[in-house]
Amino acid sequence: MSTRIEPFRAIAISELAHRLKAEGKSVIHMEFGQPSTGAPQAAIQTAHAVLDSDAMGYWESPALRERIVRHYQERYRVEITPERVILTAGASPALLLSMLSGFEPGARIAMARPGYVAYRNTVRAVHLEPVEIDCGPDTRFQLSASMIEAMNPAPAGIIIASPANPTGTILPPDELEAIAKVCRERSIRIISDEIYHGLSYGMPAACALQFNESAFVVNSFSKYYSMVGWRLGWVVAPADRVELARAYRGNLFLTAPSLSQHAALSAMDCEGELQAHVETYRVNREALLEALPAMGLNSIAPPDGAFYVWADIGHLTDDSMAFCERLLRETCVATAPGVDFDPVNGHRFIRLSFAVSTHEVREAIARLRTWFAAQLRR
Amino acid sequence: MSTRIEPFRAIAISELAHRLKAEGKSVIHMEFGQPSTGAPQAAIQTAHAVLDSDAMGYWESPALRERIVRHYQERYRVEITPERVILTAGASPALLLSMLSGFEPGARIAMARPGYVAYRNTVRAVHLEPVEIDCGPDTRFQLSASMIEAMNPAPAGIIIASPANPTGTILPPDELEAIAKVCRERSIRIISDEIYHGLSYGMPAACALQFNESAFVVNSFSKYYSMVGWRLGWVVAPADRVELARAYRGNLFLTAPSLSQHAALSAMDCEGELQAHVETYRVNREALLEALPAMGLNSIAPPDGAFYVWADIGHLTDDSMAFCERLLRETCVATAPGVDFDPVNGHRFIRLSFAVSTHEVREAIARLRTWFAAQLRR
Repeated sequence: MSTRIEPFRAIAISELAHRLKAEGKSVIHMEFGQPSTGAPQAAIQTAHAVLDSDAMGYWESPALRERIVRHYQERYRVEITPERVILTAGASPALLLSMLSGFEPGARIAMARPGYVAYRNTVRAVHLEPVEIDCGPDTRFQLSASMIEAMNPAPAGIIIASPANPTGTILPPDELEAIAKVCRERSIRIISDEIYHGLSYGMPAACALQFNESAFVVNSFSKYYSMVGWRLGWVVAPADRVELARAYRGNLFLTAPSLSQHAALSAMDCEGELQAHVETYRVNREALLEALPAMGLNSIAPPDGAFYVWADIGHLTDDSMAFCERLLRETCVATAPGVDFDPVNGHRFIRLSFAVSTHEVREAIARLRTWFAAQLRR
Repeated sequence: MSTRIEPFRAIAISELAHRLKAEGKSVIHMEFGQPSTGAPQAAIQTAHAVLDSDAMGYWESPALRERIVRHYQERYRVEITPERVILTAGASPALLLSMLSGFEPGARIAMARPGYVAYRNTVRAVHLEPVEIDCGPDTRFQLSASMIEAMNPAPAGIIIASPANPTGTILPPDELEAIAKVCRERSIRIISDEIYHGLSYGMPAACALQFNESAFVVNSFSKYYSMVGWRLGWVVAPADRVELARAYRGNLFLTAPSLSQHAALSAMDCEGELQAHVETYRVNREALLEALPAMGLNSIAPPDGAFYVWADIGHLTDDSMAFCERLLRETCVATAPGVDFDPVNGHRFIRLSFAVSTHEVREAIARLRTWFAAQLRR
């Protein structure tokens, strides 16, 4: 049997969390990166209206593709054509399409470690070769232009993510520009995962298309737009790969969910409601960044964006999965084990998602404070 | 650039059909296999309720998996566990998961030609090798046990579809049993695409799991349940591949659309409403089978199920794509060119979908009668 793929260990944590909840425990879910807020009201109203009026066949919304084109103009001053916007059932299939249509079999794809677990697994699934580059605090856990410059031979592609999962770090625009330049010079194709765009607490993240026209850009309505279970994402394919990416989309997936496309079009005009979520995350983030060091968690990546804290727990354990399970059983706070994101060093990290209510974050802090104090006394 | 994949040509026909419609023409859409009826009323009511009460995160419905287990008990007398039911955003990702978790890279996968275009393209996308077997009227355009017996060396897997696309033919239960037996004896893994189950006009189709426990069975809510744009399907994975298939699902797709899962659970109890659709298709089918031979289309596969007629037009053309385009421009009836389903002989076939209203089928027949009469006079 193939052993090319690893499961998400956070899923086991989440299943345990749900069992504890079913037993009547007060569980706080910080294990997954999913907003608990639901879709904007206008999106829900649109969905109600469409449910009663549209039989919903195979369909790709022209209006949503046009609206996404406008989003790139307004947000990044980047001009793309609607044809290049390919709608998918979440960012995951968009990543898969980018890999299939961007590279030949066997191509080497570089990515930062730590990073989102599905990058390496999806790369392997389509017979590309992941090249994980150990990235630490000195580059904010991100690939740098000089790292890519130094790779010999050059990889066929790189995956970048800014803000990143699990760390929340953002590539500064000048570094992204430098990465884009070295990739252009060395004919390295970029896949830029921009799923956490819109969620930043200082400088906003730049878009890879500002600096590199041949990049694939992946995004989704699951994070900023708070529409997780609606399963809608997109890829902006480079002009020379649009036709191929569309052929793959047609064969491998057909179309994205119709109702979600209607609702997402409305969601894109709900800036006020969505910014309120960002303000909640900002408060949550500050509360955690203030509380965690006092618990002995001093080594934390700077979460410029997204809604994660990546915390070093190496002084307490070398088995992050066992640690997360014990933490969950003893405090009912669910977190994600670092091994999901870094098979080499992740045994001494955990990831906490603060995409929950501020009330829950405060309650989690209170529980963790007591628990970590007890650990340090042991 | 990779040339491993071909586009659906029916999409170009459909785009032309939509342009003609936008110009005010009265277009009849028989090019795609999609019911025009929409989801059952109870499913829509459930969706309304869930929209107002559930924030919808990443989720796989335990109740829907249990309900699907019951469906296999009641319909086929087959016992499966809920763990083996993996929900996906349509049958397409379910096919992909089956291929990825069922076979090693390079494995040879046999399939009937004509067949659904995505089989060979998806097989290629995940680096398996399609082996297309020319199947004609003598085996009702289906693989047979003796064909599989005769293959030397044995393929690693086969894809069967009953009812089939584009022909609508059903494998008789004794032939399916014989296929299952030869596959067991020769260690050939079956992927059984059962997406058209429930849509049959004589004997119902048997399930591969009745005769072979190691088969992957793919299905969807897009056809019988009339929930196309909801993008919800499933695969029943064999016990020895469930864990691997779930790992692929988590990495490549995360979860299926949440609202669709809620609605589908309700749809599974709407037998009356759904059987009424089948009765409409039965009337449509009979109208076509009566009318087409009188137009000179005498060579038609027996559409035991699904909602397709696969008609030989070799006396009129050797370019089915150009034929479909001309037919559409001159009659405003959209059909699918045979080359989508059979790259070798499909230039002399077209596929008509009768998953439209009976009124539309009658109108299409009237237009086609005049048009084909003119063709024969030329």
